Amino acid sequence: MSWSNERNLELQARARQVIPGGMYGHQSVRPLPDGFPQFFSRAEGCRLWDVDGNEYVDMMCAYGPMLLGYQHPKVEAAASEQARLGDTMTGPSEIMVDLAERFVARIEHADWAVFSKNGTDATSGALAIARATTDRRTILLAEGAYHGAAPWCTPFPAGTLEEARAHQIEFSYGDTESLDAAIRQAGDDLAGILVSPFRHDAAHDQTEPDAAFAHHVRERCTEHEALLILDDVRAGLRLSFGGSWESLGVEPDLSAWGKSIANGHALSALVGNERCREAASKVFMTGSFWFQAVPMAAALATFDELSREPYVEHLIAMGTRLRDGWREQAERHGVGIRQTGPVQMPMLLFDNDVRFRRAYRWVSEALRCGAYLHPWHNMFLSTAHQEADIDRVLEATETAFAVIAKDGSEPAA
Amino acid sequence: MSWSNERNLELQARARQVIPGGMYGHQSVRPLPDGFPQFFSRAEGCRLWDVDGNEYVDMMCAYGPMLLGYQHPKVEAAASEQARLGDTMTGPSEIMVDLAERFVARIEHADWAVFSKNGTDATSGALAIARATTDRRTILLAEGAYHGAAPWCTPFPAGTLEEARAHQIEFSYGDTESLDAAIRQAGDDLAGILVSPFRHDAAHDQTEPDAAFAHHVRERCTEHEALLILDDVRAGLRLSFGGSWESLGVEPDLSAWGKSIANGHALSALVGNERCREAASKVFMTGSFWFQAVPMAAALATFDELSREPYVEHLIAMGTRLRDGWREQAERHGVGIRQTGPVQMPMLLFDNDVRFRRAYRWVSEALRCGAYLHPWHNMFLSTAHQEADIDRVLEATETAFAVIAKDGSEPAA
Repeated sequence: MSWSNERNLELQARARQVIPGGMYGHQSVRPLPDGFPQFFSRAEGCRLWDVDGNEYVDMMCAYGPMLLGYQHPKVEAAASEQARLGDTMTGPSEIMVDLAERFVARIEHADWAVFSKNGTDATSGALAIARATTDRRTILLAEGAYHGAAPWCTPFPAGTLEEARAHQIEFSYGDTESLDAAIRQAGDDLAGILVSPFRHDAAHDQTEPDAAFAHHVRERCTEHEALLILDDVRAGLRLSFGGSWESLGVEPDLSAWGKSIANGHALSALVGNERCREAASKVFMTGSFWFQAVPMAAALATFDELSREPYVEHLIAMGTRLRDGWREQAERHGVGIRQTGPVQMPMLLFDNDVRFRRAYRWVSEALRCGAYLHPWHNMFLSTAHQEADIDRVLEATETAFAVIAKDGSEPAA
Repeated sequence: MSWSNERNLELQARARQVIPGGMYGHQSVRPLPDGFPQFFSRAEGCRLWDVDGNEYVDMMCAYGPMLLGYQHPKVEAAASEQARLGDTMTGPSEIMVDLAERFVARIEHADWAVFSKNGTDATSGALAIARATTDRRTILLAEGAYHGAAPWCTPFPAGTLEEARAHQIEFSYGDTESLDAAIRQAGDDLAGILVSPFRHDAAHDQTEPDAAFAHHVRERCTEHEALLILDDVRAGLRLSFGGSWESLGVEPDLSAWGKSIANGHALSALVGNERCREAASKVFMTGSFWFQAVPMAAALATFDELSREPYVEHLIAMGTRLRDGWREQAERHGVGIRQTGPVQMPMLLFDNDVRFRRAYRWVSEALRCGAYLHPWHNMFLSTAHQEADIDRVLEATETAFAVIAKDGSEPAA
C-alpha cells in the first residue's frame, strides 16, 4: 500500500497560521512522531481515513469515545431522529429523564445523575459536590493522574493559579501507606478522595483494578465520612457496564463519566448516591449545550446496544488476541516490551526506551502499514474491532517489530 | 387555545427522583413561575412545543444558541452531511482549519482561534492565556457579570473554594472611576480586564454598548500592557458579525464566543491576536469532544448563512417591532415598564416589581397564550422571527398586560 501525507502537510501549514502551535490539546500530533496525520476525512467502524486517503485500523477510538465503532447505525439513527425533533432547545427533552433513570438503574451507587459536555465538567462538579456535602475542603488525588484540563487538575499549569490547586493533597496510586499519610495530613478537613479505577497515566505502565486498594479507599472514606469519587471518564463502560469497580464490589459515592457514554456524541455525566443529592442540587452546574437532546438520544441507543450482548467479553477477546500477538512478535524479534493494564485498553511500552524512541519508530512503521497506534498513551478497543481487524494490526506490527529488531530506534536515513 | 401541563408534571415528578432538585443550571424552571414547562418535545424556526403539545413563539432561542431558528435547513444539512463522514474522530477534520480561517478573516482582532464546547471553556482559557502572556495574575471583572459556571466565575459558589477566585478584582460595569480604582489596586500585576460588551446581567436593566467605556478599557489595557478580554459568549453575532464592539471601533486582545456560533450545535471559540499566540500554544486546553467535526460544519454553514444577507438589520427590525409593541401596550394599560439593552436581546422589567411578582404574572399569562417569555433574563431574537411571530407574541402580551392592569401581580384564585 502506498502511503502519502501531502494534503496533511498542506493543512498543517495552514493550521499553523490560524491555530496556536498548529493544534492544541490531546489531539495535537506535536508530541507524536513526524508524519502522524493531524487531520482525518472519514471514519467507519474501527477504520479511519486521513485527508490523504490513507486507511487505518484505529486503535485510539477517538481517544476513547468510540466504543461501538464509528457511524454505529443504531446510535446514528437515534441521533438523527432526535435531531429532526430538537437538540439544543429552551429546555431539555423528556429523554433526559429516561437517560437519568437508565444511569440510576444500571449503576449500583447511582441515585441521581446530571449531564454535561466535558469529562472535566463531571470531575469538577464531583469535587464541588464533595465539598458542599461535607462542608470540608481537602481533596486527595493521585500524583500524575489525569482528571481533566481545568486549573485544579491540569497536567500543564501554564496560565493557571497555584491557588486553584489549594486544599489538594497527592498520594501514590495504589499505595495504601501513601494514601493513609495523605488522610492524616488532611486531618478533619477531608472532603473526598478522587481516584481513577486503575492507574492509567500516560507514558507509564498501567495497573489492573486493585480490589485491596479499592476496598481500602472505600473503608477510609467511610471512616472519615469523606466521599469516594471514581473518575470513570476514560475507562467507564469498557471494563463493566456498571462502573469499573463494579466487579470489585466497591461503590463510590460519586462517579464521573464521559467519552464513550454516547459513542462519540458530546456528553459527560456525574452520578451520585443519596448522601450527596442535596449538595448536588445546590452546586451550580450548567452550560449552553448541556441539555442537548441529540447526545442523550445517542446515549440511550448506546446503552440499548450494550445491553444487547456481552460486549465486554468481545473487547476482552479482541484485546487478548492483540496482546498475545504483540507478545509473540516481540519475543520472536527479541524486542523487550511491557503490556500492562486491562486488555480492553491496550498499552505497550518498550524496555529501556529513552524518550520513547523505539515506540516512535514502531508506531511510525505501523502507521505506514495501516495501523493507527499510540506510542505512550493507552489505546482503546471498540466492539467494531473484529478478529480480521486485529490481525490487520498484527500484520502492520510484524513489519514494525522487524524494523525495530533490525535498525533499533533510528529511522532509516 | 387550550393549555395543559399534565405530561410535564408527570415528567417533573420522575425527574425529581433521578436529577438533584428535579433539574439544574440555567434551564431549570425552579426560579420560574409555576406551570412553566420543563420539558420540550420539538422545535422549529422560532416555534417550540412542550411535552403537552402546547406551541410557543420562543423568545429565549435556547438561551441564545438559536440565531437562525431551530432546524435551519442549511445548517442541519451541513451537519448531517458531516455526520455521515465523521464527528468525534482520533483527530479533527480539515474543516477545523476552514473554521479557524473564517474566524480570523471575519473578526478584526483575531489572528488565531481555538474551539471548545462550553462558553466557560472559552472564558477560562482566556484568563489563562492573559496570565501566561503577561506573566501576571490579576484579572479585573465586573461585579455581578456572568462569565460562566467555573469556580473562578460561578454566581453560586456552593462547593467551590475562595482560592479559586484569588487575584480577581471587581469593578462596576461602565464606571470608569471604579475601573481605574481597580487598576490601581492591581498595581503591576494586572494581567487582563474581562468585560461583556454591555451590561447584560440577569434581573437588572441592561445597558447599551458604551463607546466611551469601551475606549477607556482599551486605553487602560494598552497603557498597562494588560490584555482586554471581551466575553462575547452571550451577545456574539447578534449585534455584529465581527464582535459586539466592532461598531465601536474597539478591539479586544482576546474574545470568547459560544452559544450561537453553530446555531445550537455544541461549540465555543476563543480568538486572540498575535501578542497572545505563543502563550495560547502553551496553555493546556482540551476536551474529549472539542474536535468534533459536526458542530464545526454547522458553524461554517451558520457563517455562510449570516453572510448571505443583512441579518442584524432583520433582528433590529423585529426587536424594534416587539419593543414598540410592548411600550404601546404597557402605556395603554397604564403599567410601568422598562425596556433596556439592544433590541435584539429584549429585556423587559416592571417598575416597582417586588420579587418579580408582576413579571411572573405577565410571563405566566403570555405562556398560556402561546408566547414563551422570561421574567428576568434577557430574551433573544433569531432570524426566524418574522413580523407575524412578533405579532403573535404581542397578542399574547396584550392579554398579559390587561391582566396585570386589572389584577396586579396576584394570580386569580
